[in-house]
Amino acid sequence: MAKPIILLQLDADPQPSAFDAIVAADCGVDHLLRHHSVTPDTARDLVHGAMFTRGPEDLRHTAIFIGGSDVAAGESLLAAVRECYFGPVRVSVMLDANGANTTAAAAVLSAARHVELDGATVLLLAATGPVGLRAARLLARQGARVRLASRNAHRAEAACDAVRRQIEGARLSAHQTATEDETAAALDGAGIVIAAGAAGVQLLTVQTREQCASLQVAIDLNAVPPAGLAGVEATDKAAARGGAVCYGAIGVGGLKMKIHKAALARLFETNDQVLDAEEIYAIGQALSK
Amino acid sequence: MAKPIILLQLDADPQPSAFDAIVAADCGVDHLLRHHSVTPDTARDLVHGAMFTRGPEDLRHTAIFIGGSDVAAGESLLAAVRECYFGPVRVSVMLDANGANTTAAAAVLSAARHVELDGATVLLLAATGPVGLRAARLLARQGARVRLASRNAHRAEAACDAVRRQIEGARLSAHQTATEDETAAALDGAGIVIAAGAAGVQLLTVQTREQCASLQVAIDLNAVPPAGLAGVEATDKAAARGGAVCYGAIGVGGLKMKIHKAALARLFETNDQVLDAEEIYAIGQALSK
Amino acid sequence: MAKPIILLQLDADPQPSAFDAIVAADCGVDHLLRHHSVTPDTARDLVHGAMFTRGPEDLRHTAIFIGGSDVAAGESLLAAVRECYFGPVRVSVMLDANGANTTAAAAVLSAARHVELDGATVLLLAATGPVGLRAARLLARQGARVRLASRNAHRAEAACDAVRRQIEGARLSAHQTATEDETAAALDGAGIVIAAGAAGVQLLTVQTREQCASLQVAIDLNAVPPAGLAGVEATDKAAARGGAVCYGAIGVGGLKMKIHKAALARLFETNDQVLDAEEIYAIGQALSK
Repeated sequence: MAKPIILLQLDADPQPSAFDAIVAADCGVDHLLRHHSVTPDTARDLVHGAMFTRGPEDLRHTAIFIGGSDVAAGESLLAAVRECYFGPVRVSVMLDANGANTTAAAAVLSAARHVELDGATVLLLAATGPVGLRAARLLARQGARVRLASRNAHRAEAACDAVRRQIEGARLSAHQTATEDETAAALDGAGIVIAAGAAGVQLLTVQTREQCASLQVAIDLNAVPPAGLAGVEATDKAAARGGAVCYGAIGVGGLKMKIHKAALARLFETNDQVLDAEEIYAIGQALSK
Repeated sequence: MAKPIILLQLDADPQPSAFDAIVAADCGVDHLLRHHSVTPDTARDLVHGAMFTRGPEDLRHTAIFIGGSDVAAGESLLAAVRECYFGPVRVSVMLDANGANTTAAAAVLSAARHVELDGATVLLLAATGPVGLRAARLLARQGARVRLASRNAHRAEAACDAVRRQIEGARLSAHQTATEDETAAALDGAGIVIAAGAAGVQLLTVQTREQCASLQVAIDLNAVPPAGLAGVEATDKAAARGGAVCYGAIGVGGLKMKIHKAALARLFETNDQVLDAEEIYAIGQALSK
Repeated sequence: MAKPIILLQLDADPQPSAFDAIVAADCGVDHLLRHHSVTPDTARDLVHGAMFTRGPEDLRHTAIFIGGSDVAAGESLLAAVRECYFGPVRVSVMLDANGANTTAAAAVLSAARHVELDGATVLLLAATGPVGLRAARLLARQGARVRLASRNAHRAEAACDAVRRQIEGARLSAHQTATEDETAAALDGAGIVIAAGAAGVQLLTVQTREQCASLQVAIDLNAVPPAGLAGVEATDKAAARGGAVCYGAIGVGGLKMKIHKAALARLFETNDQVLDAEEIYAIGQALSK
């Protein structure tokens, strides 16, 4: 008899995400082991429990999902999980704290429907946050020229440095976008713009967006009004606006959810999956074909 | 394929209720998402997770149960849940902190088996607690004259004011029952008495109860000896004692449980149910027909 | 329709054990109600919820598992659970905090495969910990002469006293094993040695072990290198080494897991099981026949 499918949900927040749990239930997980306020220290015993309870042939029926609102905390938990691994004795793990990996993958794949990423120029607004950094990684790996923008030039530089450490030969530049003129200058010549800012913060005016003749795709990942890219609706999904194809957060959300579910399904195929930004992007690419 | 049935259990206590979880499991819930120490602030993300994960056609397979021992905390959580709703994007919710709604409904419906509530006179002993206040609401809506009694006259008056704010034209009076004489005076002419006091506190002697010629129904909601209504057994269910039909806590408990289960089932029929005192009473009324 | 099988997992640790949950899921439990940071006080309401929700004929479909890393805390929880029982209104309960009961049972039963315990002489190294104390209890009940060893003579004496209070006529002696010479003296004439020490602490050298002509069985319950009994591999299962039959932690682990699962299954047969050291040992004995 097949062992029940178990997902160990590790969440650093005071309450474990209901969203993550419901998606997992809808993917056929039989038992959700949900943990809140998880730290790398308390994660260890939980991971050992997942690793050492079932025999080798059944390890693939147990997996770990790292969620929570804090991506840095999630990354620490992923590192702690990987340190527990003992050769082939391991269980698959997926990191999607704050939905950062699935959101970045869905945004980049949405852009790739319309523009060849290799060689494209992409402006990432609010690039210094977790979704922005992951989108920069994914775009750079695909050969895009990525402009990382922040209201603060030093933070934009630091974000470039962080991505460069991960991807050799990444073509990155840092841009300060504290004023509309600076934003217009950063956008000039870009084929794609992605806004990865906080909820309800406008990062680009309609005028600046429509005056950019090179712009082919505009993606706004903020679902809470006002829009990050003014004039783009949250429900936009390949909507033509001012000469560019536009996506809003909900428009990207359908693909994001498909990627999330496909990644969860992947966790239970073998016991050796480690799904972070690139692996989740590859799952999304396979879905898009 | 039908989506799994998910109940989000929001509990303000340090441990989420096992009672509420077991009843839900017995009602066919597939996944219990149990949360303890929930505050209105931390509830918000959980409710959004329940609202925004599944498509509109599947929202009715997710619902929220608010429990815990503190009814006021439960009411705050219910308010927080309702504030999250976004037009038709919502999930059904039921409040039954401390079992207050199902207990009050079962007590009032038990009385209604024997006495027409419209025009009846009801003495509510220890009426200022959460079960008492809900029973007063339900009785007043049915047209009963409700005497709210407390050892403290000011608290009885405050309870009357609270119910009056909820029900226009409610026929209520406040009674101090600090002494046996005061209790006897409050009982005089009543057809129904309901004791909603704390565990193990006697509120009425056998003598006073039996001397009340008008009394037709006596209901004691305290299961822990000594009885709230002396001489009434916890297991009494329409037992004849001293001229009145008597119910104890366990005697009322069967109907309470049926109402609880029917209310849970109702949650999953549509995604727009908000089940508080009156809605849960109406479910109980339908069961009693 | 049969009621779903529910296990209430009470854990005193900040995170409830994933190991215990996965074993329960693999035993066919439908719903795991997992609780962390449980104290005797907060246990009470949970136990009442388990006792008073379902009717008498369905009580056996609900049971309690007490786990966590702290055996003393687990024992306090077991006492609190038993205090909640109300005549026949109860649910079955199993204590296996830190795996102490199943580990001690598996170790003693492994030894019993090779040596008649009645009259055997057994050296228990690091006997003062929870696994050691339980192994001492089980061995003494089977008629063995048990030498309880500790680096500290006073702690060894205290452990003897604790076991004597539980088992009348137990044949116990306390041994200080702070030096290799003391350990060799304690081992002299023993047929069985069981090391129940902390992870990664060596308690016996190869030389001392191999020089003990009387030794027939050597069991090491420490899975983390270095071994508690030098030269014994964690995977040893009745491996012949230096004249004795040897077991390592993983070698004992298969039987331990079988006992754990059989004990869980027993919980759901009737509603009146209380499974602590002796009852779990008896379950293991039945398995070994």
